[in-house]
Amino acid sequence: MTPPNTPRRFTRRGVLAATTAAGIAAVAGAVGGDAAASVLGGERAREVGGRRIPFDGAHQAGILAPPAAHGWFAAFDVASGVTPRQLETLLRTWTRDARLMTSGEPVAGDDAMALGHGPSSLTITVGFGASLLRKLGSAVPAELAPIPSFPRDHLDELRSNGDIGVLITADDAVVAAHALRALSRTARGTAAVRWQMSGFNATDGVTVERGATPRNLMGQIDGTGNPRPGDPEFEAHVFAGAGPAWMRGGSYLVFRRIRMLLDSWDTLSRERQEQVIGRRKDTGAPLSGGTEFTPLDLAKQMPDGGLAIGPGAHVRQASPASNTGATILRKGFSYFDGYRADGTPDAGLLFLAFQRDPRDGFTRIQQRLAMADELSRFLVHESSGLFAVPPGIDPHGYLGQGLLEAL
Amino acid sequence: MTPPNTPRRFTRRGVLAATTAAGIAAVAGAVGGDAAASVLGGERAREVGGRRIPFDGAHQAGILAPPAAHGWFAAFDVASGVTPRQLETLLRTWTRDARLMTSGEPVAGDDAMALGHGPSSLTITVGFGASLLRKLGSAVPAELAPIPSFPRDHLDELRSNGDIGVLITADDAVVAAHALRALSRTARGTAAVRWQMSGFNATDGVTVERGATPRNLMGQIDGTGNPRPGDPEFEAHVFAGAGPAWMRGGSYLVFRRIRMLLDSWDTLSRERQEQVIGRRKDTGAPLSGGTEFTPLDLAKQMPDGGLAIGPGAHVRQASPASNTGATILRKGFSYFDGYRADGTPDAGLLFLAFQRDPRDGFTRIQQRLAMADELSRFLVHESSGLFAVPPGIDPHGYLGQGLLEAL
Repeated sequence: MTPPNTPRRFTRRGVLAATTAAGIAAVAGAVGGDAAASVLGGERAREVGGRRIPFDGAHQAGILAPPAAHGWFAAFDVASGVTPRQLETLLRTWTRDARLMTSGEPVAGDDAMALGHGPSSLTITVGFGASLLRKLGSAVPAELAPIPSFPRDHLDELRSNGDIGVLITADDAVVAAHALRALSRTARGTAAVRWQMSGFNATDGVTVERGATPRNLMGQIDGTGNPRPGDPEFEAHVFAGAGPAWMRGGSYLVFRRIRMLLDSWDTLSRERQEQVIGRRKDTGAPLSGGTEFTPLDLAKQMPDGGLAIGPGAHVRQASPASNTGATILRKGFSYFDGYRADGTPDAGLLFLAFQRDPRDGFTRIQQRLAMADELSRFLVHESSGLFAVPPGIDPHGYLGQGLLEAL
Repeated sequence: MTPPNTPRRFTRRGVLAATTAAGIAAVAGAVGGDAAASVLGGERAREVGGRRIPFDGAHQAGILAPPAAHGWFAAFDVASGVTPRQLETLLRTWTRDARLMTSGEPVAGDDAMALGHGPSSLTITVGFGASLLRKLGSAVPAELAPIPSFPRDHLDELRSNGDIGVLITADDAVVAAHALRALSRTARGTAAVRWQMSGFNATDGVTVERGATPRNLMGQIDGTGNPRPGDPEFEAHVFAGAGPAWMRGGSYLVFRRIRMLLDSWDTLSRERQEQVIGRRKDTGAPLSGGTEFTPLDLAKQMPDGGLAIGPGAHVRQASPASNTGATILRKGFSYFDGYRADGTPDAGLLFLAFQRDPRDGFTRIQQRLAMADELSRFLVHESSGLFAVPPGIDPHGYLGQGLLEAL
């Protein structure tokens, strides 16, 4: 490769070393902890661009990384007749380029789009759809069984599923755009983008307090109930321990584009909105009392005898207690894609859920939510994807190596 | 109004005071200067959310503010039969709410979307289209004469023009989304969003070096040639000194959605891309030599006798020297709105140009570019808007007060 000339803004010296401590901090930050602050707290503003999340590790980095300012998701379809060897070449190239870009380094034939931007906490996480496995003649894990249809689903097939799913997260949209362009350029001839969507959050520690749970476009703190790495069974809920060997330590990703009917939501009073969710808007505390991270008290009654968290409240219907323990690790990025012809905003949440088995995770929970969640009448699921995200990569390996070697 | 409960993240104490020094720094930052660094350089990362740009001033703040991470543009149409009194009420409300939000304070009936995010350098800049003036029975300034059609224009009327144009810029997309929702909510019954688009840059001083000129999706540093407040004639180029009294000190805004044909652009070598632009990709220096801010030497010849900056190079064709001095103040935000049915990215630049008269500014330059600029075959102008942006607001006034009082 011919690297471009020296970036004028960030140099490798400005890039944070990927220490074990930073890796641990990243995990804690993913679920609202504050260990990240102790690692990064002394930095000045411009060093945010220099934040680096290691690409290699036991799990792909996008699963446990702290909330990023930008989440871009792209689904690729492989060209017809692609051979396993061609796919291996692509995945080796993507691995090499992902290592470079997550270190803030240019790739071969770099377009210079993000030259000087630093890694900006870039993560690149890759998963495989059932359609890819069928094309390769590989057995399809039972976990990739199609997600059933739910009431109120309004799915656009052209923006659903795909052979390969790629989650790109970063604190700088230019860095995300550059990564997407780089990956799609090297894919030419082997795979092409089927659909792509972009979302955003506040930047952790830059525009909101470090470790704060993001707010969604309904104004609600969203993600409080996520399992945390220290929780009992965290690994068992999120990472695959059974199924094909190439997925051990991997995770199954459910992607949903969930439109929010914001104009309808706005017609509710704040009190009514809080009842629908089951949490206060300002602090995120459950209506059963306490602060954001106080556990739900689903039995608590009000003086009038009614339940503090109503029967149809979103947090009740989504809780593990209502779903025989079903637990998923959620990530969300808001999207706002302009206005529709009817004058309403085309806006909502790019929802991602990681779990060891969607049948016991997202699907079980969504079956309940679609029937009983009061929030559901303000939401429309518009696209859906399901991907097997293989485990992390060791420094000499490549993305999906286990699958390719098992063919 | 009933303010929501205390934000849990940012408090008013965390918000930077709007000092005169900060105002000057903002102006310098808009054109690549580094005075802003002296004001903000000592801040830590999370204080970026606390950066505040004063709403009131001689000019509307979005014109001279430093490059923001997010630029959202919305065009509104007023309801049929709206009276000047109803419009005045809307503009008074927008002014009150813009003052609150640019200070990081919630508005009446706040949806809590950005609660705790801080002002994040929010600016809200409002302009009036010729269609609004006609509806009000007001004379239409000659500067608002329709922009002529250019070769290769491919304009979507549904995403062009409008009665009122609103530019929202901020370093946090959630803050931009919140501002748009708040403005559209209070407009209900008087005006509704006609179209809306969102773009991005790196955050100045957070993910790139402070004061750096943004890069566009072609990987080119874009905006180097902008006039700077210290330049001779800067005020005369950017702000209206003639025309109706309500526009003195205002500026005329041309908005264009300019799609970039990135897949075609990618087929050029870096050397060829640099020839098409007339600048180096890495440093932004002109091909006639020097560094980013070295003036173009349009006569400089290469050893082989050819021009260093070719006859069709974008910087030559766009320069004031090629356009009898035409000078505009540009702002740009990249957009990436997924992929089209043909598999190409729906991506490019939300281009904004401020000037005292578009006929002597954008239109004159674009007439030349559309014919002679080698870059033009990689660009498609997809939407267009022209708005009269009245002068800034004094602390007791409201947006567009001069116009409303002249009716």
